[in-house]
Amino acid sequence: MSQDNLNLVSAEKINSFIYNALVKAGLTSDNAASVAELMTESDVIGGDAHGIFRLPSYVKRIIAGGINPTPNITISKERDAMALIDGDNGMGHLVMKKAAEIAIEKAKKNGVAWVGANSSNHAGPASIYAKMPLKHNMIGIYVAVGSANHVPPWGGTEMLLSTNPIAIAIPSKAMPPIILDMATTVAAYGKVKEKLQRGEEMPEGWMIDKEGKPLTDPSKSGEGFLLPIGGPKGYGLALMLGILAGTLNGAAFGKNVVDFNADVTSFTNTGQFIIAIDIEAFSDVDVFKGNIDTVWKQMKASPLLPGFDEIRLPGERSDKVAKERRANGIPMHENLKAALDGVADNLGIDRIL
Amino acid sequence: MSQDNLNLVSAEKINSFIYNALVKAGLTSDNAASVAELMTESDVIGGDAHGIFRLPSYVKRIIAGGINPTPNITISKERDAMALIDGDNGMGHLVMKKAAEIAIEKAKKNGVAWVGANSSNHAGPASIYAKMPLKHNMIGIYVAVGSANHVPPWGGTEMLLSTNPIAIAIPSKAMPPIILDMATTVAAYGKVKEKLQRGEEMPEGWMIDKEGKPLTDPSKSGEGFLLPIGGPKGYGLALMLGILAGTLNGAAFGKNVVDFNADVTSFTNTGQFIIAIDIEAFSDVDVFKGNIDTVWKQMKASPLLPGFDEIRLPGERSDKVAKERRANGIPMHENLKAALDGVADNLGIDRIL
Repeated sequence: MSQDNLNLVSAEKINSFIYNALVKAGLTSDNAASVAELMTESDVIGGDAHGIFRLPSYVKRIIAGGINPTPNITISKERDAMALIDGDNGMGHLVMKKAAEIAIEKAKKNGVAWVGANSSNHAGPASIYAKMPLKHNMIGIYVAVGSANHVPPWGGTEMLLSTNPIAIAIPSKAMPPIILDMATTVAAYGKVKEKLQRGEEMPEGWMIDKEGKPLTDPSKSGEGFLLPIGGPKGYGLALMLGILAGTLNGAAFGKNVVDFNADVTSFTNTGQFIIAIDIEAFSDVDVFKGNIDTVWKQMKASPLLPGFDEIRLPGERSDKVAKERRANGIPMHENLKAALDGVADNLGIDRIL
Repeated sequence: MSQDNLNLVSAEKINSFIYNALVKAGLTSDNAASVAELMTESDVIGGDAHGIFRLPSYVKRIIAGGINPTPNITISKERDAMALIDGDNGMGHLVMKKAAEIAIEKAKKNGVAWVGANSSNHAGPASIYAKMPLKHNMIGIYVAVGSANHVPPWGGTEMLLSTNPIAIAIPSKAMPPIILDMATTVAAYGKVKEKLQRGEEMPEGWMIDKEGKPLTDPSKSGEGFLLPIGGPKGYGLALMLGILAGTLNGAAFGKNVVDFNADVTSFTNTGQFIIAIDIEAFSDVDVFKGNIDTVWKQMKASPLLPGFDEIRLPGERSDKVAKERRANGIPMHENLKAALDGVADNLGIDRIL
């Protein structure tokens, strides 16, 4: 993307635009504010494919009846260290925010808690939920069934699996928290869309076609599939995470997964789960956080391979991006700006700029 | 390995040989029986690098004082959904067997339980612990800090990470359980040793040297490192799993990891954890297991890529190997037989054959 196609937009403007659109689409003020905050955070931390970029499709889906704008999110099963949440087909952000709150509360008492959800929807980047326990001196783990299948079982050609991401967030003392947020495929599908938008080839190793040959033209991505990390290992991981986030929760998995982009009306029954771990149950919190700083420093101090200029910790890039974007604004491509203008005009709200 | 270098040995013979050796090395009869059973199971399921193959080094380590033969394994911290176990430098098998029992008991009541350990040791294949909750209609997850560092942080050359494996076991109804057991590296280090023993080259992608070039000669493995799955993703996963299994438990991680093979006397302070999830807390157990059978069938029914003759589910190969080996015995290479004869002669017990 060349710089002249970009506008810089403040987080506040993004937040209020999303809020206005969602209220107009039928969400309550409180719920719209929660979703807007989480979507904006996604843009701030550099999760560009999961923030305001998704607003046009969310609004389309709400208006088409594919998402319930006024869900009654309830606990359908519960024990001391777990809960199962019925998201009532609400926005995934609302469902997983509630799941995280319950997990944190239960972990405070019992040390660890695992909260799953069904009847949820796409919730944005995994890391924003994994991060929620951090300020309570807890570790967070979040897993989701992806919102469209792009991956066959290893050796096959039928797309039965998604990129099923996992995020793990661990608090530190003086350094930023360590936050891993990864798809179980070599490239997330959003990266393919990005290559297409930029008119670039994909590197070999991202996708193969139905003959098993490398697929590097992003305009032909519909004729192939994403490759899992480590071949059969990534397939195994996507499968197991999908069962834990989907099947265990009574949510969709395998053939039941609805392609969220292609079909805007069907009930997706998306499944996700979050784990909160109270560090104090295991260790002195301060000692633990100091040890995480030591891990940081050990990794950073490793001599480098030729061609690398630094070692990065997971989450380090996002942390830098967030500081820069909070100060200077969030770059927005003119195509996205145009799509948001369309949303504004349709809903009868002010344009973002 | 050519067939004429192989003996077929029954599981019973392997079990009693390990039992006799461990009792002679100073373990109590009960503890020796527990370890022998778990090590034998490793050989039965095809985890050849984690079963009786390890006995010579375990015995060496016990006799050298590097493992406590009579540990007092205790709970050092506890809440309703978690426990932290002090393994008292005992055999890892004993520590993680106890951890699994505690996790199962706590999960029965609270739905989910997470039990970590420090002061443990190498415990064999991850899958045997992840499997323990299955017969209680639970899902098991097991993670360990590997017993030697073979992986630098992404872009670096200092080996600060191990292959940190994860195993996840999920029960099914008519089909075998789905059991994933994977290192976070493209190849486990045992695979490199196997290539060396067979006089074969490694494929590109397993290891690189300190210049970042592919390393394919297994006799030079000391000059390079294992590659994580998915590049920076596998690095991130190894890092996070290592923090959860090591640092959180007060166990070794990073620079503190002792190379179990190179150093037989130092306290390894190995860390592992196990999670048990009571399916009944989330779902009707029978419905869930039926749904896992459906997942099996969906995956198996996918059309195939050229060059593949079937889709495999994680754990399917182990299940077949176990049936075959229980019926016909376990193949044992003559080099391993010779090493075991050495153990027998040193300890003054009967040879295995």
